[in-house]
Amino acid sequence: MTGTAPAPFTADDYRARMARAAREAAEAGLAGLLVAPGPDLVWLTGYAPTAATERLTLLVLAAGRDPVLVVPTLEAPDAAKAAGAPALSLRDWTDGKDPYAVAAALLDAGGRFGISDNAWAMHLLSLQKALPGASYASLTQVLPMLRAVKDAAELELMAAAGAAADRAFEEIRRVPFAGRRETEVGADLADLLRRFGHSQVDFTIVASGPNGANPHHEVGDRVIEHGDMVVLDFGGLKDGYGSDTSRTVHVGEPTEEERRVHDLVREAQEAGFRAVRPGVACQEIDRAARAVIADAGYGPYFIHRTGHGIGVTTHEPPYMIEGEEQPLVPGMCFSVEPGVYLPGRFGVRIEDIVTVTEGGGRRLNYTTRELVIVD
Amino acid sequence: MTGTAPAPFTADDYRARMARAAREAAEAGLAGLLVAPGPDLVWLTGYAPTAATERLTLLVLAAGRDPVLVVPTLEAPDAAKAAGAPALSLRDWTDGKDPYAVAAALLDAGGRFGISDNAWAMHLLSLQKALPGASYASLTQVLPMLRAVKDAAELELMAAAGAAADRAFEEIRRVPFAGRRETEVGADLADLLRRFGHSQVDFTIVASGPNGANPHHEVGDRVIEHGDMVVLDFGGLKDGYGSDTSRTVHVGEPTEEERRVHDLVREAQEAGFRAVRPGVACQEIDRAARAVIADAGYGPYFIHRTGHGIGVTTHEPPYMIEGEEQPLVPGMCFSVEPGVYLPGRFGVRIEDIVTVTEGGGRRLNYTTRELVIVD
Repeated sequence: MTGTAPAPFTADDYRARMARAAREAAEAGLAGLLVAPGPDLVWLTGYAPTAATERLTLLVLAAGRDPVLVVPTLEAPDAAKAAGAPALSLRDWTDGKDPYAVAAALLDAGGRFGISDNAWAMHLLSLQKALPGASYASLTQVLPMLRAVKDAAELELMAAAGAAADRAFEEIRRVPFAGRRETEVGADLADLLRRFGHSQVDFTIVASGPNGANPHHEVGDRVIEHGDMVVLDFGGLKDGYGSDTSRTVHVGEPTEEERRVHDLVREAQEAGFRAVRPGVACQEIDRAARAVIADAGYGPYFIHRTGHGIGVTTHEPPYMIEGEEQPLVPGMCFSVEPGVYLPGRFGVRIEDIVTVTEGGGRRLNYTTRELVIVD
Repeated sequence: MTGTAPAPFTADDYRARMARAAREAAEAGLAGLLVAPGPDLVWLTGYAPTAATERLTLLVLAAGRDPVLVVPTLEAPDAAKAAGAPALSLRDWTDGKDPYAVAAALLDAGGRFGISDNAWAMHLLSLQKALPGASYASLTQVLPMLRAVKDAAELELMAAAGAAADRAFEEIRRVPFAGRRETEVGADLADLLRRFGHSQVDFTIVASGPNGANPHHEVGDRVIEHGDMVVLDFGGLKDGYGSDTSRTVHVGEPTEEERRVHDLVREAQEAGFRAVRPGVACQEIDRAARAVIADAGYGPYFIHRTGHGIGVTTHEPPYMIEGEEQPLVPGMCFSVEPGVYLPGRFGVRIEDIVTVTEGGGRRLNYTTRELVIVD
């Protein structure tokens, strides 16, 4: 579960967000939004149940009516303490009652609703049964940019999360790598993220030598050796907003080829970053980074999209991927993270979070993108 | 996310579980099961993706065909390392391709499927679009008892998790309570659960004085005072299986009323436990515990069901609740946890995990259910 950390917003902030969401839903032809626990609910209300359970919690937003949070009676006192609670009314239901009937009574029986991507299938199926004339679409599909554009207060929190991740990198590059397991370095990274203010660590990838060629390798028992390239990719939530940065380091002096591949990925990252400006389609960021790698003959070894949005979660729209025509808007935040993965040998990835400004991109990570040599 | 801890099972164990699940699905008139990351997938395959993302991962089980795991290409190497991987085939899909078409090609276009309760609504909506002639039902609704009956190896792990939680209670009762915040005692409890082998802490409720009257209060900033009742309710996963136990302690000597209410809840817990035997309906456990509290005039203050199943998650079917006619079967594990909650004053809850044997119930928690006095 991500997006569960508290952020310093007021009931008025949440009221404004809920009103905007309801308005955008109406403009998109929807009868309303059905928001489940998780990042959407945190962003709209500040409420995160202490545990995700099978009991229905659902925020109902519709233009022209006040927001209602359907909540289990047991959890109502917690919900009432959320920062956004003064901006909504609670409708509680007790064990043994039918919560879907409670929700259905709030909905237009023939309407079309956007529902949180991560709402449980169990709840959606019961809503479909309770209101057979209604239809549903994934919130990300109908309002993909709802959380994408960050306001000034959010951007400050994003920058602070990025700075904390940078501090973690400045510390980790000074620890010994050779002779230690990936799991140990990963645990150090997690400790550092927490020390610098993260309340939640989402991932600490330490992918050494051949493990680096698997872009989703997390950490393993492999003992890091002198001569290894090591991909570090780590992040989480600080004050409710995400960090995510990657640097690739080398244990001792690199070979000429290792240096060349690292330089190539750095150039690709720079090209992706330089392509950022308002109005440019997301896919152009991917194309700009990919062209550098393809031109050097490494195209088949760049096997993932160039980036993903970030905010109250560490992965969200917009995605920097071929086919994504969404234009960039000032305030959007996303990763630019090209990589090259040579099976059985090593991998390189370099990643900064970038935000869109009127004048172009601004990085939220500032550690060196040169190849760092570690012990 | 729960159910993400590894458990010591082999590919053959997982093969047998998948075969049983496919068979039970067919017997229930289903064309197959669609299993999302989370407890069902862990239980069936031992595979837990490192992070829940928007990318589709889905196990397709159908009688008469081998299990197939649809997985993002990036995550395929991790999936291939799961203990159950030798018992299934991987079907990977790459960013930019349509994963729902990949899944749909494996499915009977007019069939009815059981889908994991916690599968994302986004994925279900896309499957409904890809196969408009198919229908879907929540896995818990169609096969509620799939994971409920534990085999001998699972029961050993359940007992070990319970014993570890008991050790945490034996330590926590010796720390000072008065003058410390609930959050501090909660952090101690989490540390103790980890020290005694838990890989994941799901909850550490410390509800002191009036906070105890909210059964879902987790921890707060309240400073615990001399004279407080304090509800402790904590658990998580150890070697992949869950613990969950509650004890209510008192800081210094209790009043006569506090002692009386505690005795009442203890009697109710005992009555619920004694009602456990094969063939008895789940609701009878709830009735047995509730009758004791109602007879003493405290019925309106017992505001939740008496218990819930536990296994690779800390909350799952069967539920000990009025209306649940499922008969108990040897190997089922669930909580028996009546409580009394006096608004603005205090609460009491006592909870053991109980497993069903041929001869009746067997507790998996053994700390005293007498009122413990703490400092």
